[in-house]
Amino acid sequence: MAKELKELTKRAENYSQWYNDLVVKADLAEQSPVRGCMVIKPYGYAIWEKMQQQLDKEFKKAGVQNAYFPLLIPKSFFSREAEHVQGFAKECAVVTHYRLKENEDGSDVVVDPSAKLEEELIIRPTSETIIWNTYKGWIKSWRDLPIMCNQWCNVMRWEMRTRPFLRTSEFLWQEGHTAHATKEEAEAEAQKMLKVYADFAEKWMAVPVIQGVKSETERFAGALDTYTIEAMMQDGKALQSGTSHFLGQNFAKSFDVTFLNKENKPEYVWATSWGVSTRLMGALIMVHSDDNGLVLPPNLAPIQVVMIPIYKNDEQLNAICEKLQPVIRELQAAGVSVKLDDSDNKRPGFKFADYELKGVPVRLAMGARDLENNTIELMRRDTLEKENVSFDNIAQHVTELLADIQNNLFEKARRYRDAHIYECDNYDEFKTKVKDGGFFLCHWDGTAETEAKIKEETQATIRCIPFGYEQTEGVDMVSGKPAKCRVIIARSY
Amino acid sequence: MAKELKELTKRAENYSQWYNDLVVKADLAEQSPVRGCMVIKPYGYAIWEKMQQQLDKEFKKAGVQNAYFPLLIPKSFFSREAEHVQGFAKECAVVTHYRLKENEDGSDVVVDPSAKLEEELIIRPTSETIIWNTYKGWIKSWRDLPIMCNQWCNVMRWEMRTRPFLRTSEFLWQEGHTAHATKEEAEAEAQKMLKVYADFAEKWMAVPVIQGVKSETERFAGALDTYTIEAMMQDGKALQSGTSHFLGQNFAKSFDVTFLNKENKPEYVWATSWGVSTRLMGALIMVHSDDNGLVLPPNLAPIQVVMIPIYKNDEQLNAICEKLQPVIRELQAAGVSVKLDDSDNKRPGFKFADYELKGVPVRLAMGARDLENNTIELMRRDTLEKENVSFDNIAQHVTELLADIQNNLFEKARRYRDAHIYECDNYDEFKTKVKDGGFFLCHWDGTAETEAKIKEETQATIRCIPFGYEQTEGVDMVSGKPAKCRVIIARSY
Repeated sequence: MAKELKELTKRAENYSQWYNDLVVKADLAEQSPVRGCMVIKPYGYAIWEKMQQQLDKEFKKAGVQNAYFPLLIPKSFFSREAEHVQGFAKECAVVTHYRLKENEDGSDVVVDPSAKLEEELIIRPTSETIIWNTYKGWIKSWRDLPIMCNQWCNVMRWEMRTRPFLRTSEFLWQEGHTAHATKEEAEAEAQKMLKVYADFAEKWMAVPVIQGVKSETERFAGALDTYTIEAMMQDGKALQSGTSHFLGQNFAKSFDVTFLNKENKPEYVWATSWGVSTRLMGALIMVHSDDNGLVLPPNLAPIQVVMIPIYKNDEQLNAICEKLQPVIRELQAAGVSVKLDDSDNKRPGFKFADYELKGVPVRLAMGARDLENNTIELMRRDTLEKENVSFDNIAQHVTELLADIQNNLFEKARRYRDAHIYECDNYDEFKTKVKDGGFFLCHWDGTAETEAKIKEETQATIRCIPFGYEQTEGVDMVSGKPAKCRVIIARSY
Repeated sequence: MAKELKELTKRAENYSQWYNDLVVKADLAEQSPVRGCMVIKPYGYAIWEKMQQQLDKEFKKAGVQNAYFPLLIPKSFFSREAEHVQGFAKECAVVTHYRLKENEDGSDVVVDPSAKLEEELIIRPTSETIIWNTYKGWIKSWRDLPIMCNQWCNVMRWEMRTRPFLRTSEFLWQEGHTAHATKEEAEAEAQKMLKVYADFAEKWMAVPVIQGVKSETERFAGALDTYTIEAMMQDGKALQSGTSHFLGQNFAKSFDVTFLNKENKPEYVWATSWGVSTRLMGALIMVHSDDNGLVLPPNLAPIQVVMIPIYKNDEQLNAICEKLQPVIRELQAAGVSVKLDDSDNKRPGFKFADYELKGVPVRLAMGARDLENNTIELMRRDTLEKENVSFDNIAQHVTELLADIQNNLFEKARRYRDAHIYECDNYDEFKTKVKDGGFFLCHWDGTAETEAKIKEETQATIRCIPFGYEQTEGVDMVSGKPAKCRVIIARSY
């Protein structure tokens, strides 16, 4: 068994430690010397790239164009939208100088005090302010609308407690920013992009999500409504996996962005913004992986199939590789990414454990006896089931298996989640049960006071008012006041 | 004629103003409120995306993997490589604080003095230091080598004089960083990646480049050798379009990165780095475009073919669009990006000028008479030639034309460049001629003194010692000293 695997903490022992271990041991990311910033290693980045490619395709289908806006935002821009600045001021990295110089004895470099900026610049925590300042120049009439831009970039939020992918000071994300002539169109856009995220999570990440709207307390700073997709991790905690905001005319008013409508009268522009980040990597890891390591849905696996020849001499190796070559070509032609690992410095057992750790969905192993019998050993990572199958039609068999694994991972995650969603009407019961995780559907009186009380007493928060759930009126389990609907309450990452 | 086009400065009047105008009017980029930082608009970004996609494919073919390293670099990292810090210290954006707070009367946000960083962080101007600090943890033995990583990211160099794409404080780029067991392998890698850049410039950008090695003065800060591709703009100036560095063991020594060789003895690792940036956009624009606007090589044009119906009523419009639909499908199936512009709020003449301004390689226009005659009007952007052609096989005709345009743009640029390369042995002649631009092949005595004198007296610099040029010994035209080879001297961007 590979050393890395032996040292992987078991989920049941310490879920949080298991996650941290796995991120490092599966070569996804590591801490950097810069507080709260991570290095995303090639294997982790390859998964993120696959996510990007698919999302980017969906954005373009939805009529969104990519663009790029500056990393640095003048401090004064933040002050313009009152809630926005309150939301982000406490976690801003601030650039104050633009030059270093040698110190007097030439032994070190120091900040040059004469190179102080007149106005401090903030590394973007999000780009609404700089983008709406730009849109002002792009929008004159209703004919210029809608504008739908997205950027893939890095952002910085100075977090005090960080965890790889889940919460880091710097992270990678995409942020879409759209401008519309009417309230209805903007609201529809915000909901449409939420649906793009939900579809991506379910079809590509095999992660079932609940779509809903956030309470006022949990809204994005400056939004009138924040829509969210919430996923359940294997410890029953929620992970907010993507958000889409209806910003009303707040940013248009702060940056004075108006357009002439068809009646030639000026109106403020309506806005949305929406984003997903490298946080998705955290969801992907936590939803599917197990004590043997990463489990990746085939749609996002950098290597979908690994082939391992088992041989005693070069002659056997060559015969096996020769037999495998047409299968490799057939799979590649079908768009499957295949790796043949014929490296001679690791034993097959080590390789098996290593590719398990890395979550490769399908492993094929072929030895001398297989060669004789025209068979091959096949292991699927999701169930760890192993079988000896006929070599005939193996490429087709593998292709079908990949689809099956993708589907199985989603169904498994959905069953797990659904088994951990509870309707709950009793606060004492809630307080006991919430410690073990799960999503709780509870009536809520709609006040921030009740919300704050729940959070303080249980560390759980209102994740969202879920869409597509048949609501009935009832009584708030905490305050006893009338409640119009149930919300989802859970502890979260 | 479109207003934008009328206002485009002519190249002959003021080449520099023409460039600045064109960048804005063709919707490529615009200045942002942040000093020296630009907004890359969707049309400009779409070109950059096409460049990225192709380069990324080539990097992966060359065995390079993408990864991501932190934006911020601890100041102390810079001091470790002496030349490196000297090269970049004067243009560093420095983060000193991590929080804002409301000022006393709540009217504004200010930097929170209590949130001062213990060690200042630099926004990466390039990432050798943070990457080699990371590689230290990745490399133990010769079996871990080579490591070949690339990242696509933003970098910041605080430039005092900026121009869109050519020189901006923030720019987008890719930076490859490789680690090798031997000097020979590292040197070969640096040259191999230079060739990747040269091929990309010539085949995709249709920009002929001269490959060569930089003089010591012009080397990257910390490199033992810097290889470069140099392109000639239409004003005869050089644009350094990509560089690849052989870094020797400098960074390995600064960050103490050793590996155990096959004899189990520790050795320092050998390094390269290489990068191209949004500067390539500047080259693309300046090499091909004309007084009517942008001229884009088909391989990088976001829209390769635009179709404009010319109609008097909806019936005509519908008939034309119906006739065009199968052609659109056929072109799209062949991988050609086509736009049918049937918008009713602009006249055909405006559209013609606008797509010319934006550099769309092929324009097809169809009116009622064409419909009758089974013809279509075709305009190629590179030569502005217009012809009426038969509608039969038009898709195939257009596909062939696109290849022809790509080729023609390259050949035209190559002819122009070759006609402006001069062997020159007389410094007075050089001083006169260099004012009009061009590349000058001159013998150089190899000293920094001569190099500095030429720069001071003529603003021209040694661009490179060219590869593939048959060298003969001679006499330095400035110092009169013996010279081993000719170098290319030119004014540059």
